Amino acid sequence: MNIVHRIGVKAPASKVYDALATIEGLAGWWTERTTGSSKVGGSVAFMFHTPDGKEIGGFTMDVLELAPEQRVRWRVKDGPPEWVGTDIEFHLSRQDDYTIVMFAHRNWREEVEFMAHCSTKWATFLLSLRDFAESGKGQPSPNDLKIGNWH
Amino acid sequence: MNIVHRIGVKAPASKVYDALATIEGLAGWWTERTTGSSKVGGSVAFMFHTPDGKEIGGFTMDVLELAPEQRVRWRVKDGPPEWVGTDIEFHLSRQDDYTIVMFAHRNWREEVEFMAHCSTKWATFLLSLRDFAESGKGQPSPNDLKIGNWH
Repeated sequence: MNIVHRIGVKAPASKVYDALATIEGLAGWWTERTTGSSKVGGSVAFMFHTPDGKEIGGFTMDVLELAPEQRVRWRVKDGPPEWVGTDIEFHLSRQDDYTIVMFAHRNWREEVEFMAHCSTKWATFLLSLRDFAESGKGQPSPNDLKIGNWH
Repeated sequence: MNIVHRIGVKAPASKVYDALATIEGLAGWWTERTTGSSKVGGSVAFMFHTPDGKEIGGFTMDVLELAPEQRVRWRVKDGPPEWVGTDIEFHLSRQDDYTIVMFAHRNWREEVEFMAHCSTKWATFLLSLRDFAESGKGQPSPNDLKIGNWH
């Protein structure tokens, strides 16, 4: 079971790639509390908190692949049990005047309610990635768009 | 292959249900050009156009099931070949102060790029559904949030 998304960004592929392949970039659209090494063989920790500072969990990803302006792949090393061992990938291409991001979060074991939540949440974060790459301003956690009782 | 989403709406289940089970409701968050019969056994046509009035395609759904405040199910009768024969369902429940919408678009035959586009697009329309149920104002086509070169 996979979550898939597609979004077009009016920015060069290099800009979108930097937002996916550097700690500063990731902190600009996913969560402000992003730390670690974003090189292949390194791992990146993403921590999430509420606007008033309460920690609400996080993920650690092993960086499997980096292909400049083309591809970023991670495997989830730590986080909610449903996430551990799943793969996340971003494929970039150019179409018309857009950098197209093909996103996939692969190998969920069950189609649980949490998977549906994460699917919608990924969409909102990809909109944040787009805004960040286009304008320099995304909506990373803790100022991310809330989509219900699970944040 | 399924697209799944989950969103919480701060409105009564009856209000969310009405937005899914009536022509006026559907026109308030998905596309202004919604016509047909939304009763079980009827079919509903959804047409999409650009802000300047150019038609860009549409879908016709057979209404399979209506369970007030709980469930709406459709089967796609007409539209893009990837959509025909697929099933769309909305399951409603109450959690905390939210009406939770569990959405699924089931039985895609292949994980094509168009499926990824539709997944992201569904997320933005579910945000529109939420806004419509909460405030009376959604972002239906042609004023829907654009997500790239495929609208």
